[in-house]
Amino acid sequence: MSTEKKQSNLDIMRHSASHVMAAAVKQIYGDKVKFAIGPTIEDGFYYDFDLGEQTFSQADLKEIEKKMKHIVKQNLKFAREDVSIKDAFEKVKDQPYKQELIKELEKEGNKKVSFYKLGEIFEDLCSGPHLESSGKIGPFKLMKVAGAYWRGDENNKMLQRIYGTAFATKEELDEHLKMLEEAEKRDHRKIGKELDLFTFSDLVGPGLPLFAPKGVAIIDELKKHIEEVCRSYGFEKVMTPHLAKIDLYEISGHATKFSEELFHVTSSRGHDLVLKPVQCPHQTQIYASHKRSYKDLPIRYMESEKQYRAEKAGEVGGLNRVYAITVEDGHSFCRVDQVKQEVINMVNIIRDFYRALGLWGNHWVSLSVRDYSDFSKYIGEEKDWDICEKMLQEVSDEMGLKAKKCEGEAALYGPKLDFMFKDAIGKEIQIPTVQLDFATPKKFNLVYTNEKGKEENPVMVHRAVLGSYERFLVLLIEHFAGAFPVWLSPIQVKIINIGADHKKYCQEVDERLRTQGIRMELDLANETVSNKIRKGEKDKIPYILVIGDKEVKNKEVAVRKRSEGDLGPQKVDKFIEQIKKEIEDKII
Amino acid sequence: MSTEKKQSNLDIMRHSASHVMAAAVKQIYGDKVKFAIGPTIEDGFYYDFDLGEQTFSQADLKEIEKKMKHIVKQNLKFAREDVSIKDAFEKVKDQPYKQELIKELEKEGNKKVSFYKLGEIFEDLCSGPHLESSGKIGPFKLMKVAGAYWRGDENNKMLQRIYGTAFATKEELDEHLKMLEEAEKRDHRKIGKELDLFTFSDLVGPGLPLFAPKGVAIIDELKKHIEEVCRSYGFEKVMTPHLAKIDLYEISGHATKFSEELFHVTSSRGHDLVLKPVQCPHQTQIYASHKRSYKDLPIRYMESEKQYRAEKAGEVGGLNRVYAITVEDGHSFCRVDQVKQEVINMVNIIRDFYRALGLWGNHWVSLSVRDYSDFSKYIGEEKDWDICEKMLQEVSDEMGLKAKKCEGEAALYGPKLDFMFKDAIGKEIQIPTVQLDFATPKKFNLVYTNEKGKEENPVMVHRAVLGSYERFLVLLIEHFAGAFPVWLSPIQVKIINIGADHKKYCQEVDERLRTQGIRMELDLANETVSNKIRKGEKDKIPYILVIGDKEVKNKEVAVRKRSEGDLGPQKVDKFIEQIKKEIEDKII
Repeated sequence: MSTEKKQSNLDIMRHSASHVMAAAVKQIYGDKVKFAIGPTIEDGFYYDFDLGEQTFSQADLKEIEKKMKHIVKQNLKFAREDVSIKDAFEKVKDQPYKQELIKELEKEGNKKVSFYKLGEIFEDLCSGPHLESSGKIGPFKLMKVAGAYWRGDENNKMLQRIYGTAFATKEELDEHLKMLEEAEKRDHRKIGKELDLFTFSDLVGPGLPLFAPKGVAIIDELKKHIEEVCRSYGFEKVMTPHLAKIDLYEISGHATKFSEELFHVTSSRGHDLVLKPVQCPHQTQIYASHKRSYKDLPIRYMESEKQYRAEKAGEVGGLNRVYAITVEDGHSFCRVDQVKQEVINMVNIIRDFYRALGLWGNHWVSLSVRDYSDFSKYIGEEKDWDICEKMLQEVSDEMGLKAKKCEGEAALYGPKLDFMFKDAIGKEIQIPTVQLDFATPKKFNLVYTNEKGKEENPVMVHRAVLGSYERFLVLLIEHFAGAFPVWLSPIQVKIINIGADHKKYCQEVDERLRTQGIRMELDLANETVSNKIRKGEKDKIPYILVIGDKEVKNKEVAVRKRSEGDLGPQKVDKFIEQIKKEIEDKII
Repeated sequence: MSTEKKQSNLDIMRHSASHVMAAAVKQIYGDKVKFAIGPTIEDGFYYDFDLGEQTFSQADLKEIEKKMKHIVKQNLKFAREDVSIKDAFEKVKDQPYKQELIKELEKEGNKKVSFYKLGEIFEDLCSGPHLESSGKIGPFKLMKVAGAYWRGDENNKMLQRIYGTAFATKEELDEHLKMLEEAEKRDHRKIGKELDLFTFSDLVGPGLPLFAPKGVAIIDELKKHIEEVCRSYGFEKVMTPHLAKIDLYEISGHATKFSEELFHVTSSRGHDLVLKPVQCPHQTQIYASHKRSYKDLPIRYMESEKQYRAEKAGEVGGLNRVYAITVEDGHSFCRVDQVKQEVINMVNIIRDFYRALGLWGNHWVSLSVRDYSDFSKYIGEEKDWDICEKMLQEVSDEMGLKAKKCEGEAALYGPKLDFMFKDAIGKEIQIPTVQLDFATPKKFNLVYTNEKGKEENPVMVHRAVLGSYERFLVLLIEHFAGAFPVWLSPIQVKIINIGADHKKYCQEVDERLRTQGIRMELDLANETVSNKIRKGEKDKIPYILVIGDKEVKNKEVAVRKRSEGDLGPQKVDKFIEQIKKEIEDKII
């Protein structure tokens, strides 16, 4: 709980910093500034300004930062004032964006709205809370300025958004800035291009990545790995279409939940379908295709198919936000008395998968249970929730997960376990989850015949392991900075000849490794060896084999290992044996 | 060429049979019959009738058939008559469908239209040709009656279509009927359901199959196999999105070609995209993502992604006609001097793939070249066509393909090789193709820098091997009647215990085989052994292992092989070794 409280304090402080920034902008640019909104975000805050035709430069940011420091030094008080709607309009008579916000608050039935004053230099429509005074704001930095449409709607005016960050201590700020610098170096768009993993095309459109062979090599290894792991726990692969009648999602509830994100599919022949926003409803229909008995359960399906969301055009970018993600999704349909074993299996799958990436251990688990004060907002029977929450706690205890119980964090349809990892530069990864679901089977009238010959609804257990391949690739690229472990490397071995005489032997070695399933690059170009090695290193290829007179004569290869350098000559057989073991054991 | 002529005679005869059928219907039902159209189709003919509220029964078909036989016996003459539009309308004054057809002919600028008389009993608007007289019609049979909208448009009236077939000899007719009977037994919808390969859901909608685990097992084996084969010929896997801006297809020409079949994708957020009707344009964009040199070519891409066609709602059914097919598609971008080797590779891929299914050998190849009388309708340089057609001929000669040269059968963008196979019951399979394409690279401005530093367009070589997994599954199911070779069988081995004492050993054996990657079913149900064997046989599982006292004692399994029966006891190790070899060698 201490982490959460700290987070929250940090949030208040950052929000106060955004007011200080707005105050600084007002002091510098005067009345011509129109103020929009200034919320906190992960790791910082922003404020959106309308400066007319004028734009902020980097130098302007420096000046604003200087002015902010001055305001912090002044230690001005934050003071709340609740005023009537009428008075509120009076306060913002020159501020059209604030007027719009107040109109909405009025529409929602508010009689009063609150303002926060910062000393006498700035006043803003705001529900708070804020720090006592500006002096309490920690070390901060303005990061960048970017265009942002008012309310995120591209039909509105483009405003100027200044991003900033603030921390409790200088050390934390410095650490964060260092992390950002490192993250920039590791940016998946940059590395993705350098390593030729994926591309975008103006003709195809933004938000629609095309994966080049090297990107597919990684994705396919991940697919193979996750399928293997899941298969060993009884999952069977299914394949469901990307389209459906909207009826399917009206029953599941996703038509409402994703109404804006739904892609509608029509044709001149009168078709009217949607692209699937989630996988689960389709999988229920395979379950429903047969009569099921208690003896048939658990039935476990997995698949890696695309799901679609009509993200806002202005928000798509890189692989992080795209129109279609290829989701590795899995569900178990089981009896209540089987749920525990299913959850254990799924936790094992998550453990096995993340361990192979070196991420297991640096993680924490949330046991997200219901809000005990009000069951009416949940779906299912309270007694089933009791059983299942208790059972999740048992799983946590027995498996040593040390899950932190988070009350009120359950999904509407059931309690869950969420896994949070940290990547190499400290970014939090929140992907894996095991969720119990009492609602969906009921909605789709999924049943099995129990031992007494009566029909019952199975429990549906959802599990995500790597989430989507697109976003997981971002994570992997940034975690490994493109230097993937051998088993994931698009090219695992590069062979380089020293002279023309060595080409034939290079081809022989290449062929021998290739037939062992090793992903090869054979570089016989008429360039210097050091040049070819440099290229291989730039491509972050784990092994480079250099072949000259000595190697041909001794039937060897001179091995260079990524980040370790020259390992000297090795017999080809021995090299193959070693690299195959490294691949099979998924050594990092 | 003799085959084609025979086809054509058969076609004329069947068309004449459709007139005889119409004449018989007229004789029986009189003036109330409104006649629509009566063309030939593959293996037969049909005629669409409007009988008002009345419908044809099976008994009616018998009566019509009887009347037809009488007309054939009468040996009535077919006689053509060309008449003015005005006289034509006079002839069909009670026939609204014919009137509509004549109106169209008039619109198209025809001054005269032709009718065919059958003796004095029937006269029909028809451009012919026909047999000399009805006596020359071979053995025929009416097959069924089905509803069909006038002109295939569901907004029009539903007519009654009677299907018939006719052959030159009684033997051919009998053979055809036998084949149909066999085909019905092998119907993929029937077997697909029995073996639980795929299903449809009312909530998801027609034309959108959901593949159950057993169906996916087959598809995944096919994928693995084709990828392995293609990879050994230098193909690299890519993954392209299912969506694109329509711009992509405006350039490729598919927006026009598939204007009716295009699915349009929109959202409440203003997105405007299409679902891809073909893969090729997307793949060009990966080629286009880098500068390419003559040294980089050939570049070979393959992928297995979905493509979409808005088929008419009334025409979707089973896996044969669906809204999305998962196409195994591949392209090579190469120089003209590399085309020959690329084609040889692709023919090798086709050969390797179809040989593993036992289909190679029972096939013929068409070398589809341009119409030499008019080059204006083709794209590209005539000299490149010359080189490439000659080269395809060389490939045919050198590889012993004995390709039949079919003039005028080339695609607009280049010449091609088409492969025609016959399945187990004689149905023709026309899937594999190797097509040269001079046009697409030009359209997308794909270039490489040649040895002189100048930009040139590469040639794009398209290849299809198995086409789409959906339709190929239909072919496999019907070819093997569900009894797939071991490597493709969804379940390869079923283990059955005789008594409760044998369960543990059954589980041990199951686990041993499973860890070898063999797809297993363990049946420990409390049923009789013969019952469990019967189920395994119904599921067409290649191997059933029965385990009782003797087997436990001797560490053996009693092997039953599909269609061969009891093979007696075998050591587990030996069985594993044998089945693994059978799988690896893809024994049929």
